Amino acid sequence: MTPKPPVGSPVGAVKAYKRGSRPDVAVPVRRVTLSNGDVLDLYDTSGPASDPHLAVDAAAGLPALREKWIEDRRDTETRPAASVSSDGPGRHARRPLRGDGRRAVTQLSYARRGIVTPEMEFVAVREGVSPEVVRDELAAGRAVMPLNVNHPEAEPMIIGRRFVVKINANIGNSAVASTVEEEVDKMSWATRWGADTVMDLSTGSQIHETREWVIRNSPVPVGTVPIYQALEKVKGKAEALSWEIYRDTVVEQCDQGVDYMTVHAGVLLGHIPLTAQRKTGIVSRGGSILAAWCLAHREENFLYTHFAELCDILASYDVTVSLGDGLRPGCVADANDQAQIAELRTLGELGRVARERHVQVMIEGPGHVPMDKIAENMALQAQLCDDAPFYTLGPLTTDIAPGYDHITSAIGAAMIAWQGTAMLCYVTPKEHLGLPNRDDVKAGVIAYKIAAHAADIAKGHPGAQARDDALSDARFDFRWEDQFNLSVDPDTARSYHDETLPAPAAKNAQFCSMCGPRFCSMHISGDIRRLL
Amino acid sequence: MTPKPPVGSPVGAVKAYKRGSRPDVAVPVRRVTLSNGDVLDLYDTSGPASDPHLAVDAAAGLPALREKWIEDRRDTETRPAASVSSDGPGRHARRPLRGDGRRAVTQLSYARRGIVTPEMEFVAVREGVSPEVVRDELAAGRAVMPLNVNHPEAEPMIIGRRFVVKINANIGNSAVASTVEEEVDKMSWATRWGADTVMDLSTGSQIHETREWVIRNSPVPVGTVPIYQALEKVKGKAEALSWEIYRDTVVEQCDQGVDYMTVHAGVLLGHIPLTAQRKTGIVSRGGSILAAWCLAHREENFLYTHFAELCDILASYDVTVSLGDGLRPGCVADANDQAQIAELRTLGELGRVARERHVQVMIEGPGHVPMDKIAENMALQAQLCDDAPFYTLGPLTTDIAPGYDHITSAIGAAMIAWQGTAMLCYVTPKEHLGLPNRDDVKAGVIAYKIAAHAADIAKGHPGAQARDDALSDARFDFRWEDQFNLSVDPDTARSYHDETLPAPAAKNAQFCSMCGPRFCSMHISGDIRRLL
Repeated sequence: MTPKPPVGSPVGAVKAYKRGSRPDVAVPVRRVTLSNGDVLDLYDTSGPASDPHLAVDAAAGLPALREKWIEDRRDTETRPAASVSSDGPGRHARRPLRGDGRRAVTQLSYARRGIVTPEMEFVAVREGVSPEVVRDELAAGRAVMPLNVNHPEAEPMIIGRRFVVKINANIGNSAVASTVEEEVDKMSWATRWGADTVMDLSTGSQIHETREWVIRNSPVPVGTVPIYQALEKVKGKAEALSWEIYRDTVVEQCDQGVDYMTVHAGVLLGHIPLTAQRKTGIVSRGGSILAAWCLAHREENFLYTHFAELCDILASYDVTVSLGDGLRPGCVADANDQAQIAELRTLGELGRVARERHVQVMIEGPGHVPMDKIAENMALQAQLCDDAPFYTLGPLTTDIAPGYDHITSAIGAAMIAWQGTAMLCYVTPKEHLGLPNRDDVKAGVIAYKIAAHAADIAKGHPGAQARDDALSDARFDFRWEDQFNLSVDPDTARSYHDETLPAPAAKNAQFCSMCGPRFCSMHISGDIRRLL
Repeated sequence: MTPKPPVGSPVGAVKAYKRGSRPDVAVPVRRVTLSNGDVLDLYDTSGPASDPHLAVDAAAGLPALREKWIEDRRDTETRPAASVSSDGPGRHARRPLRGDGRRAVTQLSYARRGIVTPEMEFVAVREGVSPEVVRDELAAGRAVMPLNVNHPEAEPMIIGRRFVVKINANIGNSAVASTVEEEVDKMSWATRWGADTVMDLSTGSQIHETREWVIRNSPVPVGTVPIYQALEKVKGKAEALSWEIYRDTVVEQCDQGVDYMTVHAGVLLGHIPLTAQRKTGIVSRGGSILAAWCLAHREENFLYTHFAELCDILASYDVTVSLGDGLRPGCVADANDQAQIAELRTLGELGRVARERHVQVMIEGPGHVPMDKIAENMALQAQLCDDAPFYTLGPLTTDIAPGYDHITSAIGAAMIAWQGTAMLCYVTPKEHLGLPNRDDVKAGVIAYKIAAHAADIAKGHPGAQARDDALSDARFDFRWEDQFNLSVDPDTARSYHDETLPAPAAKNAQFCSMCGPRFCSMHISGDIRRLL
């Protein structure tokens, strides 16, 4: 396959870098220079593909930004490359790393030892805080940096309530639709519009190969749900799953460079009957698979019984565990019910086990939740899970709008992020209806960038409102190009404006077609200022 | 002009009517019959155009549903038809009515006298409450029914926090774009998707004619901002405005049948300096026009000084006054500032004046407000304005997404409606960029139906969740057609599903292309239920 990631500078901006204390800490920004001379640096997730000075070639993969940082720590060893496919992109010759077994190689472990890693410094520059803040939030388990030693291409980023709210874009094929090329393209497209991480949720054919291409070309952390691939290995028969098959799948994915993994270890045998009276049962794919296994064997979930062993594997690669909410509500009627809260309590317990073993931990959350139950969700998670970063899917605030669930869920996502959720998993317009295509991916990412930013502003995150203020100033001054360039989607803003007023002169006009020249309040407001 | 409103039954449903205690109280519903035999009646705003048994002809206008109810009250008299244009649709021969001067002809006045009008009964059936609840909420000033005696075509509806949250769609041309045909089409299109009222904000040519065609064909109340037409009469020179020109414009619009009017009477001379330090000054078109007039004359706003006289005109037609927030914030930086709150206090005062004169009153609200300041907005409005219905524009929760302001504002709209806002004015994707077209109108209406419904659920409005529950049941049972038919936009839901699985058999399949057959959690959940 020969996927082509988008290249060239972002619209109306240039790719630039902010330096840390050492030359190899170079943090990318989308630098917007306004017509009044002001400069705004915007958070940039698009990676080398948007740098016109770098020749990015999907077949070669991205440069290994972190390779030397990992090497310098001298705490990893190489592994036989048996599980790495030979038909992947560029770096397939590289042998995978893992910790040499002396100490955990996780950012959590370094932070606890008081070490500020180059990754932490990178994030500090990116977030505009001191490296010590990054280290302390990591050490406390209130933030995570998903960074597998085998994904050196990833630009470090941090997920925690103290930092900018992040968003994840799900990609991946199903048995019914899509190809490797399309999925790599979706990943590039998602990061171009602002996805902070991507999850490859492929369940169709070529799961391993798709993931290889995605990871080697992804400038952001990549997450997976290993149970999907494990299930494919047993031809879709949940009861045929075993800890051994799952473990081997996890190791395979660790070797490839997956940065975080969703693990549904909180779906306990005893929780399953709590879902019997639900309107929509179990709606998490992983949750339903594990529940089916538990019931078929009348045994406790093997992810729960083997959780410590799993953590030791993850710790040796610095893979972050994302404790999946297999019992999340699938409709507003089921929100905050016994099943959901029982599992959340178990996730809190598992989080403590993981952190004891120096594994970074996130907790996943719902789902479908009416607005009046959102704050309770966040408060319970913080209390039961020791302030570990919360990572929610939406939540959708109503069930009646298939085709528009990026909107039903952006409402809930903005609200729960304001309350403290650290990362939002996007929902696309195709949710509940089909596999998202490229346009759906963009629509989902944009809706979630809006939700995340609205939350940053409501939280009073330092610096968040500067962009709103710059855009509002440009609006009041009729600097149309500046408005477009500061917006989340300059292409769309410009094309909507030009639909009715395409002439170049209109870019300096003191009105648009919405109100026309006589009725522009901003124009009249300018006159009023002169009279005051 | 020969505009054609959309005809035929709504998709996947039939138009039906629920009867009140008298045969001419026939409340339209969108009746969805599910494949399991259940029937759900959904609130329907599309009017006679969606009834295949009625031959709707835009050139003739809609049937005059309320004509006899108004006549039976024997409290109106006819007026010379001088101000009604001769080139309008059908009913142009009708002479306008107004109160005969003995008592106010407003629904507020009837309610205060203990009368349950047919309009109130219509609304009671529509909302599923007793007629006495409707009457009592009206009498207390906590709800309004905008119903000009000269718009007998309108189907009664109610706006108040006790009732289903309503949405308004703005239509109307500007000097730069659109025609009469396009605006009538937008009105029909907006009501087809669920707009509870429309505002004709035309500022271009043919203001009077556009409005005539819109009103005669609108099954929902029509609102305007009379200052726009008054300004056109003085060729756009704000300082040339006068009370007399404004008053004559109001009477002309009352004669035509406008149901509610935005009046920026709270923009006081003393408030204007409070906007001097704002980032975006005065962003309300009406507010900026009146502020310009005040400063040019160094005189108090003539709408404030003549407010009682204005109320007496409105009371004689039962036109609801919507007290405009001329000083609403135009960016998150200006939210909840001194200018906004000072004006809100004045609006509360004016509301009391209007209700003393038996005029129904709504209060308009912002605008651009970050999430953390939304609850405060609602609480202040309720306190300062005696629980009069709040009618907000969004609010937008961030300024950085031109092209997507239906989403930035749906977040704020859902939240403020949950807190008690009674009607939400939509924002389309073209906001800040240009005049919305037909597609933008639909995008805005759908986003706001979602926000309003999410609020109804969060408020625990009786019956609101039944639709979510029915759709969730259909989802769990893989009744695809039922899911589509229950959704806010059956066309889009169906087309998204069919994009990857167009075969008729897929409508009975226990999966979609998102997860494929092996990974459908709902399918596996069904198996689990059998094992429990």
